Amino acid sequence: MTNSKWPRGVAVVGAGMSKFGSFPEKSSRDLFVEAYLEMKQSVDKGFDPKKVEALYLGNFSSDQFEKQAHLAPIVASWVGLSPISTLRIEDACASGGVALRQAALAIASGEYDVVLVGGLEKMTDLHISQVTEALATAADTQFEIPAGFTFPGFYAAMATAYMAEFDAPIEAFYHVSIKNHQNGALNNKAQFNQTISDIMAAKKSKAIQKGRPVPEWASEIEFLGDPKGNPNIAWPMALFDCSPVSDGGAVVLLVAEHLAKEYTDTPLYLIGSGQASDGALTERDTLSSIPAAQTAAKQAYEMAGLSPEDIDIAEVHDCFTIAEIMASEDLGFFPRGEGWKAAIDGRTARDGARPINTSGGLKAKGHPVGASGVGQVIEIWKQLRGIAGERQVGGDLRFGLAHNVGGSGQTCVVNIFERRD
Amino acid sequence: MTNSKWPRGVAVVGAGMSKFGSFPEKSSRDLFVEAYLEMKQSVDKGFDPKKVEALYLGNFSSDQFEKQAHLAPIVASWVGLSPISTLRIEDACASGGVALRQAALAIASGEYDVVLVGGLEKMTDLHISQVTEALATAADTQFEIPAGFTFPGFYAAMATAYMAEFDAPIEAFYHVSIKNHQNGALNNKAQFNQTISDIMAAKKSKAIQKGRPVPEWASEIEFLGDPKGNPNIAWPMALFDCSPVSDGGAVVLLVAEHLAKEYTDTPLYLIGSGQASDGALTERDTLSSIPAAQTAAKQAYEMAGLSPEDIDIAEVHDCFTIAEIMASEDLGFFPRGEGWKAAIDGRTARDGARPINTSGGLKAKGHPVGASGVGQVIEIWKQLRGIAGERQVGGDLRFGLAHNVGGSGQTCVVNIFERRD
Repeated sequence: MTNSKWPRGVAVVGAGMSKFGSFPEKSSRDLFVEAYLEMKQSVDKGFDPKKVEALYLGNFSSDQFEKQAHLAPIVASWVGLSPISTLRIEDACASGGVALRQAALAIASGEYDVVLVGGLEKMTDLHISQVTEALATAADTQFEIPAGFTFPGFYAAMATAYMAEFDAPIEAFYHVSIKNHQNGALNNKAQFNQTISDIMAAKKSKAIQKGRPVPEWASEIEFLGDPKGNPNIAWPMALFDCSPVSDGGAVVLLVAEHLAKEYTDTPLYLIGSGQASDGALTERDTLSSIPAAQTAAKQAYEMAGLSPEDIDIAEVHDCFTIAEIMASEDLGFFPRGEGWKAAIDGRTARDGARPINTSGGLKAKGHPVGASGVGQVIEIWKQLRGIAGERQVGGDLRFGLAHNVGGSGQTCVVNIFERRD
Repeated sequence: MTNSKWPRGVAVVGAGMSKFGSFPEKSSRDLFVEAYLEMKQSVDKGFDPKKVEALYLGNFSSDQFEKQAHLAPIVASWVGLSPISTLRIEDACASGGVALRQAALAIASGEYDVVLVGGLEKMTDLHISQVTEALATAADTQFEIPAGFTFPGFYAAMATAYMAEFDAPIEAFYHVSIKNHQNGALNNKAQFNQTISDIMAAKKSKAIQKGRPVPEWASEIEFLGDPKGNPNIAWPMALFDCSPVSDGGAVVLLVAEHLAKEYTDTPLYLIGSGQASDGALTERDTLSSIPAAQTAAKQAYEMAGLSPEDIDIAEVHDCFTIAEIMASEDLGFFPRGEGWKAAIDGRTARDGARPINTSGGLKAKGHPVGASGVGQVIEIWKQLRGIAGERQVGGDLRFGLAHNVGGSGQTCVVNIFERRD
């Protein structure tokens, strides 16, 4: 099935995550411990910490968020894993997915048999304006930021380009948000464990409590179209188009393929992986797609010997709703310019032909940036193993894909997993 | 010769660096370009940028120093290498050495044949007090920093423990500094391209110019023992025990072993590599050595099938003079408690039995933290190939070792290189 150049395969045999959200009382090391403990419990045939040889930690900027760099040896020590090899990998919001890929290469090389992949970010200690500033350091701060851009602006520029090029209505973005909140409402680890209707109802009852005029939104679409419900951030991206500021940790256990069955009878095999880079947004020929995502996807499909139509479920990087629509095209699920129609038609819903972001995505599950790429793999772990509970996608799921983007597309990493029975 | 688990070997076939120093007019991407261009020129049989598949960039905290994270895709784009895979690796001051090791694993895995390793740091834009604060984020900022520690304090604690345990005199540290400045004086890329005598003479002539009393230092040792020449920082570490704040970039070209001769007739083979971690300094049983260095060295020697006595030259992590003495023991060059005697006896000088830091080390060459580990490899490249000019070590050099430490020893990576003719 695979066209891998790697001399040996790699499998996921355990996965755990903290709840994503805002936790003023917790530091990133606390979040790591929570995720680590859940990972331990997830290993069907038992986890032996003495076998772990390395930690690859995806983290964007604990330097800025917590004034704590050199995080990898600290969290390893915190769970008693010193003196294993530890390192932090940074590729902005793609740090987690890149950490997983690099850990897999280290196993493929024969250097390690058993490796932990972590993803961590603790963002909510700073004021929101400082968070926006810290995130902006993922763009080109010599040329883009002085021009007035921050990330909502980058994705707003992509969204307007997309709308103009493909005649897409703003409502397409609403449908992404509605769908991801529907999924998040079924995920108890999600920061927004609520549908848009739940949020509308809460706003209405708050208005009643306070004796204010009660807004009359007839539908979720109407709510999202009303600036009182969904205030503008950077048009056409409004509040419910943006992933939140989050704290969270995620941990995945990777082992060499020949050891996988010692840990579980249902491992996931990493059968495809690709990674690519790009210059700043201002240097690109197109604003309506992410070239690095197309390149990374092509590499991953080729290695896996698969086509986009083979993929059963995908977690894609919906830092903004436009990003999910572009991803659904960059990954080849829909032709260019068709992603917005698929979103409106419900083709990416849990019961659609191509379920995307069944976890709630970054939009509803939350986006602790360095953890997001690892969190995506945890959803694929759950869905392919049939343990996703109320949000379980039906049918015989075999192939799952994770698509993780850094910045406005300067980095993209795609990993493809298979369940084999 | 080697006991490698890797299915294929890795070789260094090119190396270049910027000058290390303080360059207010340059950003880290400028320093990267300088190093990259020198690397291109260094490839004997020619360098083809189209063959490069990935960039592994060691960088401690451009986030804090330059407000620029996500540096790897930016610098790759800056030299026209997009869309190659790019990532930043952070392990505090060991970021460069770890980046090299991880790049080597990626080649060993078969994923890539040709990979760039970069090391970068641009530190001097900040005020020195902010630099000290930024560096302090490499320690445990929940438990160590609130207790009042910064890095000179950590290494001062190690130095006093070492002095107490092994009856070492403070003069031993002076000898490390004198030797490294002697070497740096012969390295035109060094930040301090001066001997301690040069610095003494400059201070004397400055005093004469200004009509002030001229200090009468009879020797370098006397100068270093005088707080007017060598002010105290954190006793017993004085100014000339501390590596400087630096800007700098370094780039190394790694290829799969079977391709090495397409690039040069004299590649260096990476035959040993090890990496280990530890908890914060406050959690350790010993202050007079760095356990992670011992572990990493053991792994590297075992992989190479070598003993410490086989190593011809070593670049070790002398962020403070005490660190070089501990390294010379942790690496097995001298028995525990003997490193200080070897420093005094000149055994680590260029013409000694065990030349250490012929480049000038971090002390004199400079310490742009993320670049330092890659800079070490560049010295080994020059010495083993016999192109180190005035500072060339005599005799038939075959094995060189690089030892790169993060923080107060939470990370250590050791890489061993061989020249085979």
